[in-house]
Amino acid sequence: MSAPLPIVRTVAELRAAIAAKRQEGKTIGLVPTMGALHEGHLSLVRAAKQHCRFAVATLFVNPKQFAPHEDFDRYPRDEAGDATLLASAGCDLLYAPERAVMYPDGFATSVLVSSVSTMLEGQMRPHFFGGVATVVTKLLLQAMPDAAFFGEKDYQQLLVIKQLARDLDIPVEIVGCPTMREHDGLAMSSRNAYLSADERRVAARLNFVMHDAIKAVHAGAPVDAVEAEANRHLTAAGFTSVDYVAIRNADTLKPIASLTEPARILAAAWLGKTRLIDNMAV
Amino acid sequence: MSAPLPIVRTVAELRAAIAAKRQEGKTIGLVPTMGALHEGHLSLVRAAKQHCRFAVATLFVNPKQFAPHEDFDRYPRDEAGDATLLASAGCDLLYAPERAVMYPDGFATSVLVSSVSTMLEGQMRPHFFGGVATVVTKLLLQAMPDAAFFGEKDYQQLLVIKQLARDLDIPVEIVGCPTMREHDGLAMSSRNAYLSADERRVAARLNFVMHDAIKAVHAGAPVDAVEAEANRHLTAAGFTSVDYVAIRNADTLKPIASLTEPARILAAAWLGKTRLIDNMAV
Repeated sequence: MSAPLPIVRTVAELRAAIAAKRQEGKTIGLVPTMGALHEGHLSLVRAAKQHCRFAVATLFVNPKQFAPHEDFDRYPRDEAGDATLLASAGCDLLYAPERAVMYPDGFATSVLVSSVSTMLEGQMRPHFFGGVATVVTKLLLQAMPDAAFFGEKDYQQLLVIKQLARDLDIPVEIVGCPTMREHDGLAMSSRNAYLSADERRVAARLNFVMHDAIKAVHAGAPVDAVEAEANRHLTAAGFTSVDYVAIRNADTLKPIASLTEPARILAAAWLGKTRLIDNMAV
Repeated sequence: MSAPLPIVRTVAELRAAIAAKRQEGKTIGLVPTMGALHEGHLSLVRAAKQHCRFAVATLFVNPKQFAPHEDFDRYPRDEAGDATLLASAGCDLLYAPERAVMYPDGFATSVLVSSVSTMLEGQMRPHFFGGVATVVTKLLLQAMPDAAFFGEKDYQQLLVIKQLARDLDIPVEIVGCPTMREHDGLAMSSRNAYLSADERRVAARLNFVMHDAIKAVHAGAPVDAVEAEANRHLTAAGFTSVDYVAIRNADTLKPIASLTEPARILAAAWLGKTRLIDNMAV
């Protein structure tokens, strides 16, 4: 049984708590989350504790990264449960600001990343990366950690965050951590909770289809043919629709013709009203 | 005769110099400039020295805040002269980065402020505030000063910078300092150097017309009539054209109908190819 996790809700409280730990000579690791925590998030907390002496998780369901028709209202929320999980993983502090702390009346600034945010998820969800970049910039500048930890599950988001931290000279190390998976290989995601039992069975096919695509492209099949084939396999497996299956340059996400550069396969597909994403090194 | 001013050119050198002064318990004041320094800039350096123990000036002619047809190429540059002036005003360090330090290959992030940046200068120079907001965010995060000093001469810019620092939670105090003026009241500006002797004589009329407008609106004349009258007076005085004369809410820059709220008069007008701006409390 872990001790209850201290929770702060204002920037002043957060900074005071962190300053006290810095006085003790401790380094600070930050794990931004939207709650609805699973083993993937906890692996980030463990990485933060391994890298840094003091691990701070944040919990804020960021309205700016949801479009009006998306699932902001039904996004799962359970702060007490999340706090218990965080404490069990060794988290030292939870920062859970209200919306008015993050976006007070008159809030008017946004951080935009072009290049890596314009394609794939950026094309499908035009609001998304602007909202992510703005809230992550704020969280980094509120906490000023030594390092911040993000899952490779949201690979394009990780690239966007690395880009903004570098471009805006935020003095922080951005650390990407491997995707955590269920026993059948389904990438852990808060949105998996939306899936019916039938949908859950189909969902597991996503990672197998991606593995097959990786094998095919390594065997010499043309990239565009492999993408099209994977797309067909997902539909045949029972996915409602496929937003994309794409094999891209691992750093820029630009299309590639062959495996002469580091590559990543990324996919997004729907099961009913639930959208799943996944990615793997090729 | 002052000692030569130390100059650093990289973020690492800047941070090392500032960290050393923080170790000594000194507070840090930052004065961002584009060079071509005049007494207005030096008053910012003196304010920084009064507020903080260590004053850092920056010199970077920011290409992102010039539109392609604007005066980036002919903007006056004299680093050695600027360094001498800065040292005479008590500046402790000059940070003069190359373009590749500020905007390395692949740079892709921008900071945008809506609301206060959309009108007046924002309408006339659509590139401007995006460029200013991005470079100022970078300079603040590179140096992480306790306070940063900006002239009220660029009043709308000052409001934009206050807004972005607040919205992005940059832990810095933004200090606005009064406009410095020549003996005939012309606001000091690096761009005054472009003026011919004839244009220079006309330029001085700008501040008198604004003073007259302030008197008229205090005497009860309607705001829109006063603005139109001031506009006519500038043209009659010899200005080539007038972008705007506007009496606005001093905090939001929104139009006002009467003097029931804090107000500011702002003007922009051309003399040949030179654009002058000025503003005053109403």
